[in-house]
Amino acid sequence: MIRTGETICAPATSGGGAIAVIRISGPQSFVICGKIFFPFETRIKLEEQKGYSIIFGEIRSGEEIIDDVLVSVFRSPHSYTGEDSIEISCHASGYIQQKILELLVRQGALMAMPGEFTQRAFLNGKMDLSQAEAVADLVAAESGKAHRIAISQMRGSFSDEISMLRADLLHFASLIELELDFGEEDVEFADRTELKEIVLKVLAVTTGLSSSFSLGNAIKNGVPVTITGAPNTGKSTLLNLLLDEEKAIVSEIPGTTRDYIEDTVIIDGVQYRFIDTAGLRKNGDVIENLGIKKTFEKIEQAAVILLVADIMEGRQAILGILSEIRNEISGKNKKLVILVNKTDTDTGQKRKEIEGNIELAENESLIFISAKTGLGIAELKEKLGGLTGTDKLLTESVIISNIRHYEALSKVTESLERVLSGLEDKIPEDLIAIDVRQAIHYLGEITGEITTDEILGNIFKNFCIGK
Amino acid sequence: MIRTGETICAPATSGGGAIAVIRISGPQSFVICGKIFFPFETRIKLEEQKGYSIIFGEIRSGEEIIDDVLVSVFRSPHSYTGEDSIEISCHASGYIQQKILELLVRQGALMAMPGEFTQRAFLNGKMDLSQAEAVADLVAAESGKAHRIAISQMRGSFSDEISMLRADLLHFASLIELELDFGEEDVEFADRTELKEIVLKVLAVTTGLSSSFSLGNAIKNGVPVTITGAPNTGKSTLLNLLLDEEKAIVSEIPGTTRDYIEDTVIIDGVQYRFIDTAGLRKNGDVIENLGIKKTFEKIEQAAVILLVADIMEGRQAILGILSEIRNEISGKNKKLVILVNKTDTDTGQKRKEIEGNIELAENESLIFISAKTGLGIAELKEKLGGLTGTDKLLTESVIISNIRHYEALSKVTESLERVLSGLEDKIPEDLIAIDVRQAIHYLGEITGEITTDEILGNIFKNFCIGK
Repeated sequence: MIRTGETICAPATSGGGAIAVIRISGPQSFVICGKIFFPFETRIKLEEQKGYSIIFGEIRSGEEIIDDVLVSVFRSPHSYTGEDSIEISCHASGYIQQKILELLVRQGALMAMPGEFTQRAFLNGKMDLSQAEAVADLVAAESGKAHRIAISQMRGSFSDEISMLRADLLHFASLIELELDFGEEDVEFADRTELKEIVLKVLAVTTGLSSSFSLGNAIKNGVPVTITGAPNTGKSTLLNLLLDEEKAIVSEIPGTTRDYIEDTVIIDGVQYRFIDTAGLRKNGDVIENLGIKKTFEKIEQAAVILLVADIMEGRQAILGILSEIRNEISGKNKKLVILVNKTDTDTGQKRKEIEGNIELAENESLIFISAKTGLGIAELKEKLGGLTGTDKLLTESVIISNIRHYEALSKVTESLERVLSGLEDKIPEDLIAIDVRQAIHYLGEITGEITTDEILGNIFKNFCIGK
Repeated sequence: MIRTGETICAPATSGGGAIAVIRISGPQSFVICGKIFFPFETRIKLEEQKGYSIIFGEIRSGEEIIDDVLVSVFRSPHSYTGEDSIEISCHASGYIQQKILELLVRQGALMAMPGEFTQRAFLNGKMDLSQAEAVADLVAAESGKAHRIAISQMRGSFSDEISMLRADLLHFASLIELELDFGEEDVEFADRTELKEIVLKVLAVTTGLSSSFSLGNAIKNGVPVTITGAPNTGKSTLLNLLLDEEKAIVSEIPGTTRDYIEDTVIIDGVQYRFIDTAGLRKNGDVIENLGIKKTFEKIEQAAVILLVADIMEGRQAILGILSEIRNEISGKNKKLVILVNKTDTDTGQKRKEIEGNIELAENESLIFISAKTGLGIAELKEKLGGLTGTDKLLTESVIISNIRHYEALSKVTESLERVLSGLEDKIPEDLIAIDVRQAIHYLGEITGEITTDEILGNIFKNFCIGK
C-alpha cells in the first residue's frame, strides 16, 4: 500500500537508553507537530523554522506537560524522505513515547508501516531501489565486511554498474529496433559482430555479479561453519578461544549495546556462524544412529567443516574419521579443514607421522593447532578467509548480497544467452529484440526504474518500523 | 569521580530500531568530531557551525566510510550539559555505533560514566540536584502519575518549595546569630513567638512532604497488591481481565516498544504490581505448611490485599478465610478488599445473605464483582485509587518519591523539632543556632547547594549511560 498524501509517524529508536527519537514525515508534519509542540522561546514559530535546525521546547497534551524535547526540522526536499519531516528527541520512557505518538495520531498522523520512510525516499527519487535495500542491510550489518557491502551499495556503486549495463543494452536495442523499422529494405545498421561484443561484455559483468552472490550472501548472513570430530579432541576449547578473542576486542568499548549471539564469531570483519555437532565417535567406528544423523544434518548446512582430531590418536584414527566425513560431503562443494589439535602434548613424533602422510583433495587442508596455547589459530583464521573468498573482498569492486538482485541478474543472464545464440543462429531481429527488452526490464527491476506494488511490498515489509 | 575538563561520549539510545544517537560533550567536542565527520557540503565547517543546527555528512575512518549521519550542534552554554555538545544520529547497527565510539575515543574522548551528562548539567548550573534526579525518574516512569511527579520535579516545583523553606530558615538563623553577636548585652532581636511561628510553618511543610513519600514511592515503584483466596474463586480471571484491558489500550498504538511485564497493570495512571499467591484452601481450613507460608510472605509485601471469594460458598466460608487473613495482617497498616466474585452465578439470594452481614474494619471493604462479566470492576478500580491515595494526586502540589529526599527531610524535621523544644525550654541561642544550621544544611543537600562527592556518586551511578 502506497500512501503519499498522508503524514506518518513512528518511533525511530527502540528499547531503553537515555533518549528516544520519533519521526514524522509528510505534508502535514509542521501543522500536526505545531499543535503539540511549544518552543520555550516564544518568538520561535515551528512553521517558519528553516530546515536543518533544532528547537528546544515542550510537548503538551492540553495542560499536561509530556516532556521537554528537541525538535529537528527538515524541509522538503532536503530530508531523508524528501518530504517535510520532523524528528522529536524525547526522554526514552515508554510512557512518553507512547503519549507523543498518541498525540500525533490524534492530530491526524498515521502510524508508519515498516520501511515506509525509506519507501517514500525511493518514491521521491532520493535513492533507487537497491540503495533503499542497502539501508536495511546497513542497519542489520553485524560485521565489518557486511557493513562495507551495504555502505557501498547505499552509495550507489551497484546501481551505477547496473545503469551502465542498461545503457549498453539500450544502445544495442536501439540498433536492433532501427533495423526492424527498415526491415523490408533489408538494411543492416547493427554490425552483428559489434552486437555480439556488447552482449558478451554485459554477460561477463552479470555473471561476475551473480557469482559474487554466494560470497556476498555468506558475508551478509554469516558463513556457516561446522566444528566436528571425536569427543575430547578440543572442539569446545577451540570455539571458546575464537569467541573469547572477539569478546575481548568488543569489551574495550564500554557502553555499546551489542548482543552476543552464542557461537557467532567475527574474524577479520567476517561473521562466522559456528554450528555445534554432537561429536563423532572415535576411530570412525559406526556411530549410534541418532547422533550421526544429526551431526551429518549439521554438516549439510555448513560451507566449511572443521574436523578436529587429537594428534595423539595418530594418523590411522584421523584417516578413519576423515573417510566418514569425505563420504558425507562428496560432491557437495564444501571445504574441509582438518585441525590436528593438542600439538602441545606431542614431542614432534606424532606430527612427523602425520605431516605429509595424509593425502588431501583440492577442497581439503590440514593445520596443526593447539587450542590450548593458540598455536596455528592465526593460520586457521587466514585459511577461513581464503576458503570463503572473504580475504579478497577489498580488491573487488561490487559484491551482491541480495537474493532479489541475484534472481534478477540470473534472468538477465538467461535472456542475454538467448540473444547470443539468436545472433549466432541468425534468428530474426524482432525475436532477438524481445530478449533484449527482457534483459533491460530485469535490470530496471533491480534499481526500481521498473517496479510493481508487489516488489515494493516485498522489499519494505522486511524493514523495521521507523526506517 | 568528577572530570570536567574531558570530553565524553556515549550511546544515548539502546537496542535496535532504525537510528541511534551518540552524544559527545566537553570542550573538545568540535575538535574531536571534526576529525571523523565530513559534511557533504564542503563549504560547511563544523567548528564554525552555530548552535541548534544540523549538518548532513559522513563519518570516516581513514578512507573507510562508516556511515551517513546527521550531526546536531550545541554551543556552550546552550546545551543539555552547558558545554559544547554534539549529537551524532547514525544508522542503528551495533557495528556502526561501536565504530563511531571507537573513533571518538581514539581522537581523545572518554567513554562517559552513567549519568555523567546530567552530572555535568548539574555542575554547570543547568539544573539543581533534585531536578537532575527527576531526569532519571522521567526516563524510568512507566505510568502517567509517576511521569507527572517526575516532570513536576524536573521543572523545579519541589526545588522551589525547598528553596522557600531554606530562605525562611536563613532569615531565622540571621536573627539568632544577631542575638549571639550582641550576646553579652542581652539584647533580644528575635521575638521568640515569631521564631516559633517560622519553625512551625517550615515543620508543617517538611512533615507534609515527608508524608507524601509513601504515596510518591508507591507511584514511582508501583503499588504492591496481592490477590489471594481459595482455589477456583476466579483470581486468574480477575487478573487477566485487568491485564487485558490495559493491553487493549496500549496496542491501539502500533510500533511502540513497550515491554509487558507480567502482572503489572496500570489503572488510572497508577502502576500496580500484582503478586501471585499459591491460593488458600477453601473454608479457611488449616493449610499445608509450605503453601500458606509463602502466601503469607507475599501478603507481607503488599500494600493492598485483594481477597477473592466465590459468592456460592456463602457467608460462613468468607468469614472463615477472612479471619485467617485478618490474623495475618493485624496491626500492619494494610488495606484489605474482599471481592465476592461470580455474582453472575447467583440469583441474588447469596448476595442477600452476605450483603451487610459481614462486619468490616476500617481498613476493609467489600465489593461484589463478576470477573466474567466485568461487573464491579470499575468500582474496584476506583477503590484501589482511593485506598492508595493516588486518586487525589491531581490536587496535591508537590509529592516526593525519592528516598534521599525523604531522608534529608526527616533530618530537617528532627532538627526543627529540637529547635522548637529548645525555644520552649529557653535553651541558649548558640545551641539553637546549631540545630537551625543543621536543618539548613539538609535542605541544601536536597537541591545540591550543599553537596559531597559521595552524594553525587550515589545519585549518578544509578543513571543509564548516555544520560
